[in-house]
Amino acid sequence: MDYLFFTLLAFVPLAIGAAVAGVSPVIVFFLSAFAIVPLAKYIGEATEELATRTTPAVGGLLNATFGNATELVIGVFALKAGFIEVVKASITGSIIGNLLFVLGFAMLAGGWSREKQIFNRTGILAQSSALFVATIAFVVPAIFFQTADAAAAPAVHSLSVLVSLVLICVYGASLLFSLHTHKHLYLEEAGGLGPRWSTTRALATLVVAMIAVACVSDILVDAIKPLVDRLGWSQLFVGAIFVAIVGNAAEHFSAIIVARKNHMDLALQISIGSATQIVLIVAPALVILGVFLGQPMDLIFNTFELVAMVLAVLIVNFVVQDGESNWLEGLQLLAAYAIMAIAFYLHP
Amino acid sequence: MDYLFFTLLAFVPLAIGAAVAGVSPVIVFFLSAFAIVPLAKYIGEATEELATRTTPAVGGLLNATFGNATELVIGVFALKAGFIEVVKASITGSIIGNLLFVLGFAMLAGGWSREKQIFNRTGILAQSSALFVATIAFVVPAIFFQTADAAAAPAVHSLSVLVSLVLICVYGASLLFSLHTHKHLYLEEAGGLGPRWSTTRALATLVVAMIAVACVSDILVDAIKPLVDRLGWSQLFVGAIFVAIVGNAAEHFSAIIVARKNHMDLALQISIGSATQIVLIVAPALVILGVFLGQPMDLIFNTFELVAMVLAVLIVNFVVQDGESNWLEGLQLLAAYAIMAIAFYLHP
Amino acid sequence: MDYLFFTLLAFVPLAIGAAVAGVSPVIVFFLSAFAIVPLAKYIGEATEELATRTTPAVGGLLNATFGNATELVIGVFALKAGFIEVVKASITGSIIGNLLFVLGFAMLAGGWSREKQIFNRTGILAQSSALFVATIAFVVPAIFFQTADAAAAPAVHSLSVLVSLVLICVYGASLLFSLHTHKHLYLEEAGGLGPRWSTTRALATLVVAMIAVACVSDILVDAIKPLVDRLGWSQLFVGAIFVAIVGNAAEHFSAIIVARKNHMDLALQISIGSATQIVLIVAPALVILGVFLGQPMDLIFNTFELVAMVLAVLIVNFVVQDGESNWLEGLQLLAAYAIMAIAFYLHP
Repeated sequence: MDYLFFTLLAFVPLAIGAAVAGVSPVIVFFLSAFAIVPLAKYIGEATEELATRTTPAVGGLLNATFGNATELVIGVFALKAGFIEVVKASITGSIIGNLLFVLGFAMLAGGWSREKQIFNRTGILAQSSALFVATIAFVVPAIFFQTADAAAAPAVHSLSVLVSLVLICVYGASLLFSLHTHKHLYLEEAGGLGPRWSTTRALATLVVAMIAVACVSDILVDAIKPLVDRLGWSQLFVGAIFVAIVGNAAEHFSAIIVARKNHMDLALQISIGSATQIVLIVAPALVILGVFLGQPMDLIFNTFELVAMVLAVLIVNFVVQDGESNWLEGLQLLAAYAIMAIAFYLHP
Repeated sequence: MDYLFFTLLAFVPLAIGAAVAGVSPVIVFFLSAFAIVPLAKYIGEATEELATRTTPAVGGLLNATFGNATELVIGVFALKAGFIEVVKASITGSIIGNLLFVLGFAMLAGGWSREKQIFNRTGILAQSSALFVATIAFVVPAIFFQTADAAAAPAVHSLSVLVSLVLICVYGASLLFSLHTHKHLYLEEAGGLGPRWSTTRALATLVVAMIAVACVSDILVDAIKPLVDRLGWSQLFVGAIFVAIVGNAAEHFSAIIVARKNHMDLALQISIGSATQIVLIVAPALVILGVFLGQPMDLIFNTFELVAMVLAVLIVNFVVQDGESNWLEGLQLLAAYAIMAIAFYLHP
Repeated sequence: MDYLFFTLLAFVPLAIGAAVAGVSPVIVFFLSAFAIVPLAKYIGEATEELATRTTPAVGGLLNATFGNATELVIGVFALKAGFIEVVKASITGSIIGNLLFVLGFAMLAGGWSREKQIFNRTGILAQSSALFVATIAFVVPAIFFQTADAAAAPAVHSLSVLVSLVLICVYGASLLFSLHTHKHLYLEEAGGLGPRWSTTRALATLVVAMIAVACVSDILVDAIKPLVDRLGWSQLFVGAIFVAIVGNAAEHFSAIIVARKNHMDLALQISIGSATQIVLIVAPALVILGVFLGQPMDLIFNTFELVAMVLAVLIVNFVVQDGESNWLEGLQLLAAYAIMAIAFYLHP
């Protein structure tokens, strides 16, 4: 697996070269998409290496901050370029992708040739219900927007900003919970194998990978507009399917690998936790950044995106209720993802 | 009980005679409705008889194929006659009828004079969450339709066809699950009492009952239009309440009888399983058949039908969470059904 | 705590005096709001005193009748004054307030400095799923209204009245359940400490407090219109946040106090039970009273209110699934409430 990611690094110079050479944007888009996958992986690894040589609290904070670095960096470049629809679509896609595609694949791969896989209901239920509560932060502004008249446009944007601040507070509280008041529940994970890299190597990897992700994200985002024009795909489809899968690729691999090893608890934590962080910190951070970048980013998703997200969250809440999974449940989640992806593709 | 169904067979010649004699369509409608009830019962019985003399896998396949034969036959005749609204309404009605009316009645009848009835939470939760995942196949096309403009009409129909194919694949996978990879979970049911009928009698019953159901369905469907005109009822009400109850009458009786005998697991399996099969195979099969019959059948239910179905599925998912039922829960489900039926009746 | 309520009684003469003296309606509104809080508390206490000296069945009936007396009295005065939007908003606010604000505060206060608080999953799940089933009585009329054309206005009102009658029947059935067929499940609560007041004192307190609540409610309702004009707040915000909090203040205190004492079962019963009674008896009673008062009160909530209520009910159903709570879950519920309150405030 490590070799695969190392090999994929070759896409970084390829993507940059292709962009400089002015190759077809379709090729540039897919080259830079592949290039982001190993970079996201190395950012994650470097963060964990740094985390092991600090206190659990600081390590947890590091993980929480850099765990979504890739999605955030792509989001910032898309926002700067004014692709607000793409940013929102990639948030939508990250949520349904983590909950349906990643989790479905993990349950299918993990449950194949096994009777069933069991996980700790109580812990997972707490996570999935927290995700549902967070998701209402997307529902309320959308309904507000639909029921308010045109004169209420400033109120709509204020609501998005205020809701974002509430979400960031909840995120802060959940860090306080996991790093302070209930840290004993999380200690086992922090253990790990101890550091393998030197601090210098970890820091250098983190810095270099972040710079590379920034460059490649810039290239990826620049290729979206011509790609959309050339292939006739919608921004919704490109953002929700391709950009979202790329931004979450590292989590995808991890979840499937641990599921095959029968660690369904961890697979569920990765996919549900990743979706929760998109809602609690990535989306609100992009709204707040939008204010500074002068881009009218808000939390008003269109009905289609909103329904897709709410359904995905509801599905996960119901599917985890019985505390066990099998390959058919995984296939059902993938079918739900396929139906949404087809609809995103056909949507005009 | 067997005598009741045998006596009801008298409605078959009555319905055919009344139709030939040109009696009032209101009378023809109700005569043919009553005639379908025993036929559905005998199709079910003959299928089970045939199933007991094959391997469990073939038997399961037979049950899966003929279990929804009645609904499918009625649906095909309504589709051929161009009553697409009635077809969709009867799909809606089959789902809310199985989940609220049948299950509510079973919980009320079974729970009456008992403190509570207990069932296997884990097994039922897996079924009810599978039903919820399947239901999103109806939600996504409807939202697509509402958010797309008129120019997207061809895309809307393509989406319905593609979603139907996904659903049929999931149905195939669930047969693979129950008949192959996890067949040991279902063995006990296949046991039964062994064959009571000869193979010839079972086959003959199946063929004759299928032909009779086809004739009577044709008569029933022909009576809908004049019935609607005469009584001022909406196609929605006729399809969702009357046609749906008739098509599922056999399941209704079975569920209530086993609930009275305190076999709540079986009662839940019948009602939830029947609703799931409507979503996974009856509805998509009718969409695909519509393509061949040249009828624009799709999966775009109106908002009212969609909300009724989603609410019914959510209600069942919540009600089964505690692993027990009592008469009050049954009454609550019946109240929910009554509210929907009143609304269907009043809807213009 | 008892002293606090006794002291708050001073607001009763203050509110009446201010209203008579013609002080600014903003001051009158807040004075009468504070005055209702202790009165609601004394009505509850007098009811319980009377209940302890009757049979459990009669006592249960007394509690069920007077438990919502305050909300009902405020609702009747608002209805008489024609503030139908305020009445509906206060119903909405009572439901989200009980489920998110009260329960959130109880979980936060109770969970603070505790690892977690445990409650009886099965019992609470039965209550929260019953609440969800009841809530569909608000969803169906709203969807009916949105999908029907203008010509269907009389049908819309008939539907509200019929649905209200169904709800009142379900309420009657749930009394039959708790007072007759399953009364042994509720006996422990009825026990208590035995009477502390004389019958005369309890009766006198009940009568005097009811009269005082009626007077102060009248004053409160009269102050709403000028308050709305003066402060520029919407009727939605005033009804859903202020009127609702005042009407439920007694439950708020009780739930938080028992949560601090680690009786989470009771805290959950108070908040979920209070919300259920709003749906099953307060709202339908106001619709039926509206017919007699000649006010077109119905069950058609606007989309925004409806979504807020359904989300609150879903959140509670998911949050209680794991049978335990902690301070972070409480904070999440409060965040959800804050998001809705901000949206109500900004809504034009």
